[in-house]
Amino acid sequence: MTLEATIAGLTKESKKAARVVANLATTAKNQALLAMAEALVRRKTYIQAENEKDLAAGRDQGLSAAMLDRLALSDKVISAMVDGLREVAALPDPVGEIAEMQRRPSGIMVGRMRIPLGVIGMIYESRPNVTVDAAALCLKAGNAVILRGGSEALRSNLALVQVLRDCLAAEKIDSAAIQVIPVSDRAAVTCMLQREEEIDLIIPRGGEGLIRFVAENSRIPVLKHYKGVCHVFVDAGADPEMAMRIALNGKTQRPGVCNALEALLVHRDSAAKLLPALGDRLAAAGVEVRGCPQTLALIPSGKPAVAEDWGMEFLDLILAVKVVADITEAMAHIAQYGSQHTEVIITNNHSHAQRFLREVDASSVMVNASTRFSDGGQYGLGAEIGISTTKLHAYGPMGLRALTTRKFVVYGEGQIRE
Amino acid sequence: MTLEATIAGLTKESKKAARVVANLATTAKNQALLAMAEALVRRKTYIQAENEKDLAAGRDQGLSAAMLDRLALSDKVISAMVDGLREVAALPDPVGEIAEMQRRPSGIMVGRMRIPLGVIGMIYESRPNVTVDAAALCLKAGNAVILRGGSEALRSNLALVQVLRDCLAAEKIDSAAIQVIPVSDRAAVTCMLQREEEIDLIIPRGGEGLIRFVAENSRIPVLKHYKGVCHVFVDAGADPEMAMRIALNGKTQRPGVCNALEALLVHRDSAAKLLPALGDRLAAAGVEVRGCPQTLALIPSGKPAVAEDWGMEFLDLILAVKVVADITEAMAHIAQYGSQHTEVIITNNHSHAQRFLREVDASSVMVNASTRFSDGGQYGLGAEIGISTTKLHAYGPMGLRALTTRKFVVYGEGQIRE
Repeated sequence: MTLEATIAGLTKESKKAARVVANLATTAKNQALLAMAEALVRRKTYIQAENEKDLAAGRDQGLSAAMLDRLALSDKVISAMVDGLREVAALPDPVGEIAEMQRRPSGIMVGRMRIPLGVIGMIYESRPNVTVDAAALCLKAGNAVILRGGSEALRSNLALVQVLRDCLAAEKIDSAAIQVIPVSDRAAVTCMLQREEEIDLIIPRGGEGLIRFVAENSRIPVLKHYKGVCHVFVDAGADPEMAMRIALNGKTQRPGVCNALEALLVHRDSAAKLLPALGDRLAAAGVEVRGCPQTLALIPSGKPAVAEDWGMEFLDLILAVKVVADITEAMAHIAQYGSQHTEVIITNNHSHAQRFLREVDASSVMVNASTRFSDGGQYGLGAEIGISTTKLHAYGPMGLRALTTRKFVVYGEGQIRE
Repeated sequence: MTLEATIAGLTKESKKAARVVANLATTAKNQALLAMAEALVRRKTYIQAENEKDLAAGRDQGLSAAMLDRLALSDKVISAMVDGLREVAALPDPVGEIAEMQRRPSGIMVGRMRIPLGVIGMIYESRPNVTVDAAALCLKAGNAVILRGGSEALRSNLALVQVLRDCLAAEKIDSAAIQVIPVSDRAAVTCMLQREEEIDLIIPRGGEGLIRFVAENSRIPVLKHYKGVCHVFVDAGADPEMAMRIALNGKTQRPGVCNALEALLVHRDSAAKLLPALGDRLAAAGVEVRGCPQTLALIPSGKPAVAEDWGMEFLDLILAVKVVADITEAMAHIAQYGSQHTEVIITNNHSHAQRFLREVDASSVMVNASTRFSDGGQYGLGAEIGISTTKLHAYGPMGLRALTTRKFVVYGEGQIRE
């Protein structure tokens, strides 16, 4: 069988299974999720043995220690997966909710019912924990899911999904609702991205290269973010202590993630009060400053910023710092260099706060808070399936509801259109 | 200048204008819309003179009388455009609404603010009234719009948009917010569909051929419906009078539109009570029945249905009729042949009504009402920009809100992530 035929067969099975899981009762979905949590614990030896094969192959291929670490299904990682499954089971079921029901002048009642999207394709890199998290969220939202993780994690992913599918089968649910692309060939991804008749949505997670590849080759809608270049603008008259706390938290709490702070914009009237002390605190935290000339006059330990530093996603202990004339220049800088992820103003000026919230085009816009709050869990969405920085369908962190849509439902009593 | 460069220059101007109209106050948008309504009346002679050139060219090219009729900007058509502009001005402005604001355990307040999408590309066929309706809806939702109508209507569309743009300029609004692709070459559409950096959403309206061309060539998300193959299922025990009324209304009130009825499925226990009388009424209304053998036994004047009649969008006084064993067979038929547009059950059985509403996958699902109600105006959305039968972003009739999205807004008081 050709690769194309293999993938087509698999996606068709997913589409059939999607019709089944779309109509499962909430209790059936929750029971399956809780059974999966138990099974991951019970079958840990099997999972870790398969994972060990991936790790051994990875060591042979010379994967870095960091990559091997991300690949490893340690007891701790499995335990986090188990907690994740239980959390998803505890979330309210979005499917079937009817809202906005109203009586129209014709006498019909019109409302909107929340329904699953159908088949979700997840394409991601190393971490096998995405496998379980994504499967759980897709199932809870009534969707079938097709998983395609990193090729170096294929045996681990197949083992994890085997355990999940056995639980579906035990609950008499079509186990094709959760599938893994069983080959590591990258051509399989290209085939998958052509199956627009069966797959309703693609969510890629990983580095910018993977995401661009998916976006450029997909005939199916893609929800994605390429990167997070998050700015904090410190307005005139802002509390320097608050600005310092939020800048340090954004940059140093977890520098390798997409909602970390990458660039600080400082109103010229706040520069002298803020930058010398902030420079010391950043240096003490091991952060390299790349500044404009006005910044370097106040933080002499910094390096001169080059053109590429503006709009750069460092994912590291490096912070670009620029002194600006006012909020208008700050917002123009953000419009030019931002990535529509998360943008923050530190201000005590009410109209500036309102203007920034209204006018800045980003999926999260904040006043007086750390960029690190830009997260489905922190926002109360429950677990997060990804972040979208494109505006269609979802913008920002995506939880269960982003895996659903709404249809119109009409209750009539024999009405016809005059 | 190459065609590619012309289109790129135009879309870049639209993107710049989008930033302006996104931040207009509601009163500014409404004033512009009301000024446009007045200007269409005031400059009717100019508009109709340009329209006459299109009509003359159309007559020379041998366009059908029906096509010339759709192309004509009669006083009545212009008056309907004027009414449309006033209606859009009267609609509530969706932009800026903040909903779901909640305090999170961290102390931050998180909510969602409704914002425009950016630049909308409208691609459509003959009727120049779409030009004004779409421009009005896009402007009210804070978006820039790029219009591409039928080549036979180019002079009419340019004239209409000239009038609208003069009103924008008079109100000191960047007139690039409303643009027409100024060439009739179809290659211009292909160029437009590549401008993903500037255009956020494409809405095609017209025949299936146009829509497939757009969907296959677009790098930009497309909201569309190919066709409307709407079914009515008459359950066992349904009121035959109600079934007859709804079937006749769906088929005959306006047979050429996408929410017209195309196929009737009748439970075998309802067939003898319904079909003979319905057959007479349909014949009296000039409707040709194409039936399964059981149908023809009860409507002898009908013709035998061939395989292609199931799932066919007749857009004409033709109705496919099939007798089915039960609701399960009816729903399986709809799943196979429906177009996810509008599906109806006529029933007096509560659990069948609930099951049909829940399980049928269509953008509108109805109980005891005519398919003809599937319409933005009838649903209370205000004017309609189109209908989507794909599930991402919008499913079903699309009004102003479908031209917007939501960003997260966060109000903090200095919180950082622990």
